[in-house]
Amino acid sequence: MEQQYSSALLGKAVDEFAKLPGIGRKTAMRLVLHTLRLDADKVDGFCNALSRLRHEVTYCTVCHNISDTEVCSICSNPQRDGRLICVVENIQDVMAIEATMQYKGLYHVLGGVISPMDGVGPSDLEIQSLVDRVEEGGIDEVILALSSTMEGDTTNFFISRKLARFDDVKLTVLARGLSVNNELQYTDEATLGRSIINRVPFRC
Amino acid sequence: MEQQYSSALLGKAVDEFAKLPGIGRKTAMRLVLHTLRLDADKVDGFCNALSRLRHEVTYCTVCHNISDTEVCSICSNPQRDGRLICVVENIQDVMAIEATMQYKGLYHVLGGVISPMDGVGPSDLEIQSLVDRVEEGGIDEVILALSSTMEGDTTNFFISRKLARFDDVKLTVLARGLSVNNELQYTDEATLGRSIINRVPFRC
Repeated sequence: MEQQYSSALLGKAVDEFAKLPGIGRKTAMRLVLHTLRLDADKVDGFCNALSRLRHEVTYCTVCHNISDTEVCSICSNPQRDGRLICVVENIQDVMAIEATMQYKGLYHVLGGVISPMDGVGPSDLEIQSLVDRVEEGGIDEVILALSSTMEGDTTNFFISRKLARFDDVKLTVLARGLSVNNELQYTDEATLGRSIINRVPFRC
Repeated sequence: MEQQYSSALLGKAVDEFAKLPGIGRKTAMRLVLHTLRLDADKVDGFCNALSRLRHEVTYCTVCHNISDTEVCSICSNPQRDGRLICVVENIQDVMAIEATMQYKGLYHVLGGVISPMDGVGPSDLEIQSLVDRVEEGGIDEVILALSSTMEGDTTNFFISRKLARFDDVKLTVLARGLSVNNELQYTDEATLGRSIINRVPFRC
């Protein structure tokens, strides 16, 4: 049974919040009541930020990362190493890698992985534009940083075939192995097995 | 260390979502990315609902419940029993009682309870307006439906003193006892004790 609200405006706002993923009606009500207690300009600020994001945000024409300008702040940064391209699935992956502070090259956001089951083929992804970027020259290495799933592996394979003719461009993938701080006994067999095969010299 | 975003608009929207209670930066990012995938008119609808709620919503001049009109839909409904007033702390309590479908009287929203520790005195609450409503006449019963806390009990006591001179107005409180479906062994002692003292005849 649907809850009745004494204010239609309140009911509408709760409905709208409850449409967001992971937010049920109780949480929606809590957020709406919080909104009512806020200053009007705070609420306007929230709405404005969301509306501007949806209407004004764009995607970098080079790497397809989310951006406020035609070329994103990473691609246009002269401090970054333009000879390195890290291929990722989506913009969250860019943020995850940026958060490590370990990578100074550029990115290429595919917008997904090849997944015939979901109707996603190579032409739905930014693969041709990646090939074009490599073809333009000046690239030393392409890092394939996709998920270690069947779809990710398929996409890696497809891209490696497309880039095979560029002999001087190195293709690499991220290292797989034990997580830092993870206990050995709780690591899954596939990862543990891979970490034995790909063992590296001990450095202290 | 603060995460860097390649889009300032994205960062701003995440900041705004993360200000909401119970929403951290990871959830905020998930909500923002969801927003980006929505149609622009859906996002506008969300912002519009929130903005209208904050700017246009008002409070009923009779019962102080949230309302779109000067007198709320409950107070102006001729089907409701105007001789009954249920005194509650806030508008969530009105909604909780409405959801039970067991109450057909009117409400009076105090806007809190007396709490000297938090600097809330009787004059900060809608107690005088309750006395005025009772004084106007036509009220048979006032139900005190406040929380069973020290502050709630204090407020009950204060209101009962204020209404003592109206001899023909019955004052009642909600029944306390075992929760429906609750197992006896997991019920706290105070509640279990109260439910023994206030036992009622068995009906099947």
